[in-house]
Amino acid sequence: MIINRKQYRTIWFKDGLIHTINQLRLPGSFEIVKINNADEVIKAIQTMVIRGAPAIGAMGAYGLAQAILQMDHLDWKQVQQIKDKLEAARPTAYDLTHGLNFIMERIKGLNTLSDIQKQALEAAETYADNCVKACKKIGQYGNQLIRSGDRLLTHCNAGALATVDYGTALSPMRMAHYEGKNIFVYVDETRPRLQGARLTAWELGHEGIAHAIITDNAAGYFMGKGEVDLVITGADRIAANGDTANKIGTYEKAVVAKENGIPFYIAAPVSTIDFDCPTGANIPIEERDQEEVLFIGEQLVSAKGSPAKNPAFDVTPARYITGFITEHGIFPPEEISDLSTYHD
Amino acid sequence: MIINRKQYRTIWFKDGLIHTINQLRLPGSFEIVKINNADEVIKAIQTMVIRGAPAIGAMGAYGLAQAILQMDHLDWKQVQQIKDKLEAARPTAYDLTHGLNFIMERIKGLNTLSDIQKQALEAAETYADNCVKACKKIGQYGNQLIRSGDRLLTHCNAGALATVDYGTALSPMRMAHYEGKNIFVYVDETRPRLQGARLTAWELGHEGIAHAIITDNAAGYFMGKGEVDLVITGADRIAANGDTANKIGTYEKAVVAKENGIPFYIAAPVSTIDFDCPTGANIPIEERDQEEVLFIGEQLVSAKGSPAKNPAFDVTPARYITGFITEHGIFPPEEISDLSTYHD
Repeated sequence: MIINRKQYRTIWFKDGLIHTINQLRLPGSFEIVKINNADEVIKAIQTMVIRGAPAIGAMGAYGLAQAILQMDHLDWKQVQQIKDKLEAARPTAYDLTHGLNFIMERIKGLNTLSDIQKQALEAAETYADNCVKACKKIGQYGNQLIRSGDRLLTHCNAGALATVDYGTALSPMRMAHYEGKNIFVYVDETRPRLQGARLTAWELGHEGIAHAIITDNAAGYFMGKGEVDLVITGADRIAANGDTANKIGTYEKAVVAKENGIPFYIAAPVSTIDFDCPTGANIPIEERDQEEVLFIGEQLVSAKGSPAKNPAFDVTPARYITGFITEHGIFPPEEISDLSTYHD
Repeated sequence: MIINRKQYRTIWFKDGLIHTINQLRLPGSFEIVKINNADEVIKAIQTMVIRGAPAIGAMGAYGLAQAILQMDHLDWKQVQQIKDKLEAARPTAYDLTHGLNFIMERIKGLNTLSDIQKQALEAAETYADNCVKACKKIGQYGNQLIRSGDRLLTHCNAGALATVDYGTALSPMRMAHYEGKNIFVYVDETRPRLQGARLTAWELGHEGIAHAIITDNAAGYFMGKGEVDLVITGADRIAANGDTANKIGTYEKAVVAKENGIPFYIAAPVSTIDFDCPTGANIPIEERDQEEVLFIGEQLVSAKGSPAKNPAFDVTPARYITGFITEHGIFPPEEISDLSTYHD
């Protein structure tokens, strides 16, 4: 992605340190965080310095590789412990498991620490590169759905910042824009953490893509008025039957889109599909701290003493989803399980 | 309503001044504003010191009465001008028109300034009293829909603060609670102005009614999980066919409620029904300032330079509405137009 005329990835590895853009500070300031060890990786994921399923997957892969690079003797038990600890950082995004398994697969059977270290870092770099390629492909396939003049709606941030580059839901919009198609994007602000208003609007602004921020409440209004042609969101975990966990509020948008005959697509790499998870009922939903709802920054925005409930994700049943835009093409929910052949 | 162990109305007239609770300062501080003239009435309505359709109706009635009391000679043209100016303060709430017409009807044909002044003030007091009685009745009828153990959902603030007392959507919840029914209320925070988090939660807290604030995005999640038994919201204007304008986001909640087989009721006095308005397509929707979305308090919460769109209301088609809880009973949408006999 282009930021201030320079090309960036969301996450990269250099001189033994994981580098990532601090998403807690955006859009107010652009700051690169350097991460030293697995505990800092977990903290970065949990506090949402980095967020977005594919980005968390890459962070997990780099985190495990970094931990292995820091070992002074080979201890498989310790490798497994670090892997388990990283995997538990956040429960909903499947990419985290996928990224960690990708490293584990490539080091298994190796016998010397130096071989394992070399292979783990190469695997993490390959994982990140694959993520970039997949997102670019998602953009190329998804672009086929977009006509010049279309008004799109997206929820949360499924942009370059949520991946390693390009994004999932935002990648087709980038490709359409690069091709000269005239598009307009309604950006759900996405309470409680406002990733739409803060991150998606910031990315679209840097790309020069026309957009407007709306409250989450207003999405239905514009859909009902016939002012939305297409909805594309990302995903945190896709069950084998196509039920999809994504940022809280996605379910409402999908129901209202269907009610208004508006196509609703999920853009996600195959790494987000959990083929071992039969339906959405099996996806764990993270409950986050109530302070995320009650406060904005330091400011209490609610009645003192009133509690809040704060589920971070919801599950959209497959019947509301028109199709999945993946790096291998666009598929209806019933064909998602066939993609397991691509899992690696 | 009870605030700090004292009984209050949202609005009252004393010593020539209109008194109202400053809703911009809640829940942080409880402050009574004194309003001196029609320009201040308009400012209070536009800046949302007072908001909520029935409360705006009472403010309009008191505002016109106050302006008439301040006249030193009888000038019908001026009375009409003030009425028109007050009526234009906000476009969507029908109660404003209703409250002003209530005064005009009661002073027409009178000949002396003193008669008109006496009658105008009496009419405004009657209007406010009628509003309180209507809301109490709404509570009694609506309470019949609530079983002990029910989990309710409401959007925005349709409480005592949005009326003169009791509220519309919150009145049935108050009555159920006073009767000892065990209820729990999910409070949509209601972006952009957070009337749910700030005002509804504050009212429920003062009443001791169990509740939790949720993001607007989370309403669908709890509905989908079967954790909401009943939705009740207020209304800003109801068309003759039952299409209902209410706070932005109401439409989404209604669609998702229907999809999940959850009854969705609108609680409103007959003064909110615009019998001259055939369908929702004829209801004017106010677009408010984009800063309401982009800033929370003084804090920019979005990407710098990104614009926002901010429709304040949406229209829920009658087909999503189970029924209307009014002061005359509970009616399905197709019977709403019969209530015109009660309009006065």
